[in-house]
Amino acid sequence: MAHEVADFPSGPLDIYRNKASFNWKDMLCFLDGEEIIAFKQHVFKTFENDPLFARRPGEDVPLAEMRERTFFRLKQLFRYNFLTKEEVMANPWKIYGSTIANLGSGRHSNYVENIQDMTMFGCFGMTELSHGSNTRAMRTTATYDPSSQEFVINSPDFEAAKFWVGNMGKTATHAVVFAQLYTPDQVCHGLHSFVVPLRDPKTLLALPGVLVGDMGKKLGQNGLDNGFALFHNVRIPRENLLNKTGDVTPDGRYVTPFKDPNKRLGESLGALSVGRVSITRMALVNLKLALIVAIRFSATRRQFGPKNTEEIPVLEYQLQQWRLIPYLAAAYALEHFSKSIFMNFFEFQIGQMMREKTDRQAEMGREIHAIASSSKPLGSWIAQRGIQECREACGGHGYLAMNRLGDLRNDNDPNCTYEGDNNVLLQQTSNYLLSWLHAKHHNGVRIESPLHTVDFLDDSHNILESKFTARTMEECMDSAVPLAAYKWLVCFLLEDSQKRLEQEMASGKDEFEARNNSQVYYCRSLAIAYIEHNCLQRFHELTTDTDTPAGLRPVLSKLCALYGLWSLSNHMATLYQGNYLSGRKPTELVQMTILTLCSQLKDDAVALVDVLAPTDFILNSPIGNADGQLYKNLWSTVMQGSQVLERPSWWKEFCSDKPVVGSLRPKL
Amino acid sequence: MAHEVADFPSGPLDIYRNKASFNWKDMLCFLDGEEIIAFKQHVFKTFENDPLFARRPGEDVPLAEMRERTFFRLKQLFRYNFLTKEEVMANPWKIYGSTIANLGSGRHSNYVENIQDMTMFGCFGMTELSHGSNTRAMRTTATYDPSSQEFVINSPDFEAAKFWVGNMGKTATHAVVFAQLYTPDQVCHGLHSFVVPLRDPKTLLALPGVLVGDMGKKLGQNGLDNGFALFHNVRIPRENLLNKTGDVTPDGRYVTPFKDPNKRLGESLGALSVGRVSITRMALVNLKLALIVAIRFSATRRQFGPKNTEEIPVLEYQLQQWRLIPYLAAAYALEHFSKSIFMNFFEFQIGQMMREKTDRQAEMGREIHAIASSSKPLGSWIAQRGIQECREACGGHGYLAMNRLGDLRNDNDPNCTYEGDNNVLLQQTSNYLLSWLHAKHHNGVRIESPLHTVDFLDDSHNILESKFTARTMEECMDSAVPLAAYKWLVCFLLEDSQKRLEQEMASGKDEFEARNNSQVYYCRSLAIAYIEHNCLQRFHELTTDTDTPAGLRPVLSKLCALYGLWSLSNHMATLYQGNYLSGRKPTELVQMTILTLCSQLKDDAVALVDVLAPTDFILNSPIGNADGQLYKNLWSTVMQGSQVLERPSWWKEFCSDKPVVGSLRPKL
Repeated sequence: MAHEVADFPSGPLDIYRNKASFNWKDMLCFLDGEEIIAFKQHVFKTFENDPLFARRPGEDVPLAEMRERTFFRLKQLFRYNFLTKEEVMANPWKIYGSTIANLGSGRHSNYVENIQDMTMFGCFGMTELSHGSNTRAMRTTATYDPSSQEFVINSPDFEAAKFWVGNMGKTATHAVVFAQLYTPDQVCHGLHSFVVPLRDPKTLLALPGVLVGDMGKKLGQNGLDNGFALFHNVRIPRENLLNKTGDVTPDGRYVTPFKDPNKRLGESLGALSVGRVSITRMALVNLKLALIVAIRFSATRRQFGPKNTEEIPVLEYQLQQWRLIPYLAAAYALEHFSKSIFMNFFEFQIGQMMREKTDRQAEMGREIHAIASSSKPLGSWIAQRGIQECREACGGHGYLAMNRLGDLRNDNDPNCTYEGDNNVLLQQTSNYLLSWLHAKHHNGVRIESPLHTVDFLDDSHNILESKFTARTMEECMDSAVPLAAYKWLVCFLLEDSQKRLEQEMASGKDEFEARNNSQVYYCRSLAIAYIEHNCLQRFHELTTDTDTPAGLRPVLSKLCALYGLWSLSNHMATLYQGNYLSGRKPTELVQMTILTLCSQLKDDAVALVDVLAPTDFILNSPIGNADGQLYKNLWSTVMQGSQVLERPSWWKEFCSDKPVVGSLRPKL
Repeated sequence: MAHEVADFPSGPLDIYRNKASFNWKDMLCFLDGEEIIAFKQHVFKTFENDPLFARRPGEDVPLAEMRERTFFRLKQLFRYNFLTKEEVMANPWKIYGSTIANLGSGRHSNYVENIQDMTMFGCFGMTELSHGSNTRAMRTTATYDPSSQEFVINSPDFEAAKFWVGNMGKTATHAVVFAQLYTPDQVCHGLHSFVVPLRDPKTLLALPGVLVGDMGKKLGQNGLDNGFALFHNVRIPRENLLNKTGDVTPDGRYVTPFKDPNKRLGESLGALSVGRVSITRMALVNLKLALIVAIRFSATRRQFGPKNTEEIPVLEYQLQQWRLIPYLAAAYALEHFSKSIFMNFFEFQIGQMMREKTDRQAEMGREIHAIASSSKPLGSWIAQRGIQECREACGGHGYLAMNRLGDLRNDNDPNCTYEGDNNVLLQQTSNYLLSWLHAKHHNGVRIESPLHTVDFLDDSHNILESKFTARTMEECMDSAVPLAAYKWLVCFLLEDSQKRLEQEMASGKDEFEARNNSQVYYCRSLAIAYIEHNCLQRFHELTTDTDTPAGLRPVLSKLCALYGLWSLSNHMATLYQGNYLSGRKPTELVQMTILTLCSQLKDDAVALVDVLAPTDFILNSPIGNADGQLYKNLWSTVMQGSQVLERPSWWKEFCSDKPVVGSLRPKL
């Protein structure tokens, strides 16, 4: 297979490519597999050959045109039909999902068909102007009228307008609207979802009773038209209720397969959880693209050098290595992690589709929810910080729009917010961990979960007795060292969080306040440490797995150790505080090991980003091109800019009729 | 005076405003003074009344139009002439500067006049495509031709094109070009600056031999047209050499008042150093604007709440307080700090204008250079992180362009890069500190500087013996506690950095490599700790100064302690490592004090941002308006968007001729 992957063009990056300690094509095959490599190549090539997908680096595209481009590209994507459902099932790395298929039932299959041929265009209307995280507080109502067998959808006021809905701004013909369901007896049955037509699909004009429009420009993701909708007694057929979690009979009785309304809401929101796993991966893609740009730049940008020698690539500076290479290690850790949790999720979904109602399936659902609720913060924040570091590490050239680091930052940003604010989501994870501790203390339950991410907590007593024992840098280069430290850290923070909660309750606070006052330094840190531990654990296992090619294990082991130590170094104070560390030596060891690993990996860095790199067309960043011709690519892109040499529109306004001092005119 | 400042409109923010522990107008008068308040009010009002300065929140302005607006606004600014030179001297808070006035001499005064009436438009051409930080490596040449008494300006190749020059893209008629000066005897006399005409001021067309153009879109600051220029043997009169640091006689002899070429370069670059002080302040302005938006939003955005009560403002959550209020404290610390170092710089400039050649003046120059080289990283990074936190803390609404947090982030970003990359600049500061230690060790010099920022280092021996002794939260609330810790920290890092350097040299590395390998964890941390200490020191002095109004001291003291402890908490591992801290207690104390201070300050937070807030017109962020009508302002701004309700241009393309399923149409 590896021979089918083309070599990169020869150029200034050869110096580093030739020094790499491993074969980058072997790594590519190991990470992606032949089928995905071929699939990506096919998709990338198709885009490159299709004028609809043409782009110019850094071009200034008006908002309306950005949306238009997205629309036509999306239409084209449907035509290309890169993925059939069967292919997805055969290779789940190509998965996609559908809200209506998940929340609805047989009677909604015609929607699914219409969406697929784009005669309908849907959107997902949960958030309202005044409510986001607090989904239960949504105020849109759906009141059943048995006389006409219709629901009446109504927004009580503009603060309850649906807001932030993707595709709603310009495009959507229908919305899945989450609303409080009222039966004719005035009883509210909680949040349910309804298909509500918004615009006439023939004209895209808004339907009567619907005030629907565009929210305007966002910091990024402007190809997508987010919008708002205000409903004034809009009537929809009874059948438009997506009835998986509850239904209303023609005469107006509410029926549900769930007895516990909390469980019902949980099932409704379950449709969201795949989103968090996907966002972890989306954030990673942004981080990888930024790293490709910054590392190739750093390998070709030369600045200063020892006296009387030529200037050296900035990648040779320890400081530049330390700024970038740990993020590269994190990208490799997250690459494996995000795939691994996706497979966990896929396994869980298969169980759901099989309608497995076992305890293990339910337990797995809880665990995946805990993982996904913290993997999204982990991925989106590392990406946020990493892209920023890449931007700064490329200096001024990183500030030029054509080099794309700004777009990556702007497009990554909502990953920190949507499908749950990161800080709010982390509470889901810490609550899960605390519930295990509670179950152990009060019911003597053994801590053991289907995916084993919490099993070590059962041994908390012994782990908390352990200390940092590494004495040499060689020892520290084994990722088992940070991994052991993380186990201690999670146990420590779990106990401390529990104590803190108990103190707060003991001081008379109610549970709401007690939980809120236990987030900073406790539950929040706990959730972060848990997911970092899990990410490191999985990467550590990969590097020690005998299925991992021997030729790749050394570099993967270094990346793993670096990721572990570097992440751990954010928690050093806690490690000292709990006496896991003491004295000067451990910090020095950890720091020196990080710097040594960075230095050892700097000759592999270009090959490591080559593995992650899409084609230049997809990367779309002149300073990050595979040929490493930094200045030629940058210069020629600048020169291709529209109006690059044109004088400005206001040139006549420039000079009033005052004379210009003659002697300063050039002699020509 | 305070009575002349208008009250804010009554509304949802009243709850917090009424709870404030201090009078915000007193604070405003204390920070700004009457003259500056009146000046700002005048300027803000003038802009608001002038249609040229009209803006719509979040509008999508094409690049060319952004530049055009800037041009006409700038022209208008010259007309308004808010500041005369005399006014600047009378109140230096209104200062501005001029490169030509600083680098040139009497023969260049006509330029200065032409620039002021905008018949000329200048730009500053230092950076080249392939060189930024390494200014000595610039490759543009200026070769003197005695036969015509001209300099010939030449770019050896496109990699030596001047690049990133502000105003060069579209507007500038002349550039101050930094080039290697060659005399007819082929001797290179190093970097000098020359006035080079670029475009005909009558037509704005490029002059022969000059390839000048626009670099295209940047991440932000797009009102400014950055550009490039490539010179092909462009001839300029001999007099166009800005001759402060060196001149060429008509027959081609080089003459200079400086004997040491290093000193000459230093003097040339001296013109840059005011930039770093100003950037510290510019970054602060961005941070303040973001905080005003995020805190007013947090005080009016309600989400969740205790059972059976109404939802509470998100500012009531400890987590939200912890995310935002420390940055507010940092903004107050930097407010005082940036003014204070500006006055230091002003004092120094007066000395330069008086042509004082005393040792004290020279020593002060070195110290200010060290301060400015680290205050810029301090200010720009706090702003970068703070704006990002504000963006995330406002959730989705923070991601909407109209709320301006994206623009603030994008506009702040270059502060981390220009006038010296932050990481590179920090080396200037650590080198300064190391040189003091060296002087003390080798020459027995007492460490004592004109601005006293290093004096405590002379007592390093005793300071390093000290320990963290606070035992109660009350003690920790005194900013003397973090201040003492910072003194220890700077001493510790200085000694450690020195040792690290010595180790590197002892292991056979040359100075270039030894310095490079002593940055991470050592010199870089040292420079950051030094400037954080200095910022805290000055703020601490302000809070204990008897001239500070008694009514303001309590809240300022809390802000000061919070800033100190919060900044210090980034260094906890080092404090443990060096045994300044030991055991669990100190971390718990510091953390609990930070949370308690946040909680105590949350009722003051709205008043504290009111003090910093410009008018709503200037703030230009609907969710941050002074009336606190979060949703009304947001909704009405969305509804005023251009094309908000219009269907998209591609509506006819939307639906092919496939039939739409009838039963799904709404019943109307």
